Amino acid sequence: NDKLKIFSLNSNQSLAQEVADEIGRPLGKCSVKRFSDGEIQINIEESIRGCDVFVIQSTSKPVNDNLMELLIMIDALMRASARSINVVMPYYGYARQDRKARSREPITAKLVANLLEKAGADRVIAIDLHAPQIQGFFDIPIDHLVAEPILTEYFKGKGLEGDDLVIVSPDHGGVTRARKMADRMKAPIAIIDKRRPRPNVAEVMNIVGNVEGKTAILIDDIIDTAGTITIAANAIIESGAKEVYACCTHPVLSGPAIERIDNSRIKELIITNSIELPEDKKSPKIKQLSIAKLLGEAVIRVFEKKSVSTLFE
Amino acid sequence: NDKLKIFSLNSNQSLAQEVADEIGRPLGKCSVKRFSDGEIQINIEESIRGCDVFVIQSTSKPVNDNLMELLIMIDALMRASARSINVVMPYYGYARQDRKARSREPITAKLVANLLEKAGADRVIAIDLHAPQIQGFFDIPIDHLVAEPILTEYFKGKGLEGDDLVIVSPDHGGVTRARKMADRMKAPIAIIDKRRPRPNVAEVMNIVGNVEGKTAILIDDIIDTAGTITIAANAIIESGAKEVYACCTHPVLSGPAIERIDNSRIKELIITNSIELPEDKKSPKIKQLSIAKLLGEAVIRVFEKKSVSTLFE
Ligand SMILES: Nc1ncnc2c1ncn2[C@@H]1O[C@H](COP(=O)(O)O)[C@@H](O)[C@H]1O
Ligand SMILES: Nc1ncnc2c1ncn2[C@@H]1O[C@H](COP(=O)(O)O)[C@@H](O)[C@H]1O
Repeated sequence: NDKLKIFSLNSNQSLAQEVADEIGRPLGKCSVKRFSDGEIQINIEESIRGCDVFVIQSTSKPVNDNLMELLIMIDALMRASARSINVVMPYYGYARQDRKARSREPITAKLVANLLEKAGADRVIAIDLHAPQIQGFFDIPIDHLVAEPILTEYFKGKGLEGDDLVIVSPDHGGVTRARKMADRMKAPIAIIDKRRPRPNVAEVMNIVGNVEGKTAILIDDIIDTAGTITIAANAIIESGAKEVYACCTHPVLSGPAIERIDNSRIKELIITNSIELPEDKKSPKIKQLSIAKLLGEAVIRVFEKKSVSTLFE
Repeated sequence: NDKLKIFSLNSNQSLAQEVADEIGRPLGKCSVKRFSDGEIQINIEESIRGCDVFVIQSTSKPVNDNLMELLIMIDALMRASARSINVVMPYYGYARQDRKARSREPITAKLVANLLEKAGADRVIAIDLHAPQIQGFFDIPIDHLVAEPILTEYFKGKGLEGDDLVIVSPDHGGVTRARKMADRMKAPIAIIDKRRPRPNVAEVMNIVGNVEGKTAILIDDIIDTAGTITIAANAIIESGAKEVYACCTHPVLSGPAIERIDNSRIKELIITNSIELPEDKKSPKIKQLSIAKLLGEAVIRVFEKKSVSTLFE
């Protein structure tokens, strides 16, 4: 077990500490600082020669700094003769540019995959990638975990289950995720169906499925500015739902997100700690669940060369 | 000539515009913005299919943002079917970590080279790399320009030349650069020789060479916090020099640099515009020379498949 080393960078130190505690190993010693001109200065302060190293870093805001920290750390680990470099990315930034939506756009999700590999990563552990296809952007093994069971457990703990409930996907892209949660809660699903009748005409929002008299749970992978999710929540209430919860894996929560959530009909927003919430993004409506156990279990299984896929059951 | 396209990113738009003017081509249209969560959003707004594209970007502060802009731009250009992607980096950030000075450190200069290549760069044009060995970090062609002739011309224009002058290298690493300037000005050289007699004892600064009664010109590649250069300048004056100028290619000028320069015995600091100076880094003592002509000439020669090496004569 002393060949297993876990390091944290700066994006999400409290989650990294929790994961280390789950595994029963201390976090590896390393200093991650800045030179006077802003360049990142990393020094690994213990030998990792011949070890399987796990680096925990979310490429959340400030995304470019966090990504460069990760790439420089991988470079340093490689040169320090790690046996394997396993990158644990609770949040994988730049994932939403995963295709060319218009001509002459980049595909940043693929670029990030390329950079991680080139720097020397041997394996990636990620959770709820914006598109599962991003797995195929890598030529190294990637373990793709899902947080939906953790979110579901929380709602079950509230006694929510069955036909009084409806699981709502805020868009067509998220139906599979809603379907999974609905199966586990023996509940029906509904879908928010947005369309623009003509260019430059406001979008029309329509709910496909029955929400009347029910408790609705909106589920998404990322909540960023919270525009879609709060409009959806209000529409669900207006369609006769009793109450509406929202949940997501990755609380990006940029710009007006907190204000929108606070002012919306959302009763409670359940998120995970894949992204650390700064103090000014905390709100009485927001409850954060930990993915540390899931990650810890995945790290141990990877280290012991056991299958990770059973973690999804 | 319409197969030659020049694009500017955000680090140094005024230099990019000057280079475009030198070449007589407009800057290519592209939008480089931020999403709400801070991720970079690039869209190239004109066709570049089959073109030789030159992207001008210094990876100066904020280095991680500027580097990611560059990598994402290269990705977008590659996907938009550029014939060649030529990266013009007036300042190459992360160059000072170019070797493992201690165990378990990264070599960021090599990492950056790897990332540029992986993103899809076909060629790099750089100026005064901190170590010429960084050229060997690339498996693609790199044209390595020097700014010393531009700095030298400025001093010649002041009538400075010959034996009343001495060119001073602020450390052992910069002697070759000082030697070149001295040759061109028919002047002798001197070297600042710093050594630490014992660990934890203050450094002793000694000047090897004669500066008495002379005008001294300190030359370096990068001036960052300006600690070394200002201490050197003061020591030169104390050793009897008549006056002391300083010059460098890359004005990083972080932290206390401006204050130190203003309070030093340096008469004038001559820099280039490889890094754009923000308003709060301007000082009456600092004079900025343009490298636009040098870069423009290099771009044209690369485009016309002519040798760039004669630019150094
Ligand atoms: N960081 C970001 N913030 C907001 N929108 C983004 C971001 N990254 C990509 N996008 C856009 O979001 C769209 C993809 O979102 P989706 O349709 O949910 O997969 C693409 O058209 C992107 O242009
Ligand atoms: N951005 C930076 N700011 C200050 N020092 C740096 C920076 N990058 C690297 N260094 C250090 O500077 C030393 C190399 O400088 P030099 O001896 O002039 O080549 C190395 O030991 C690095 O640790």
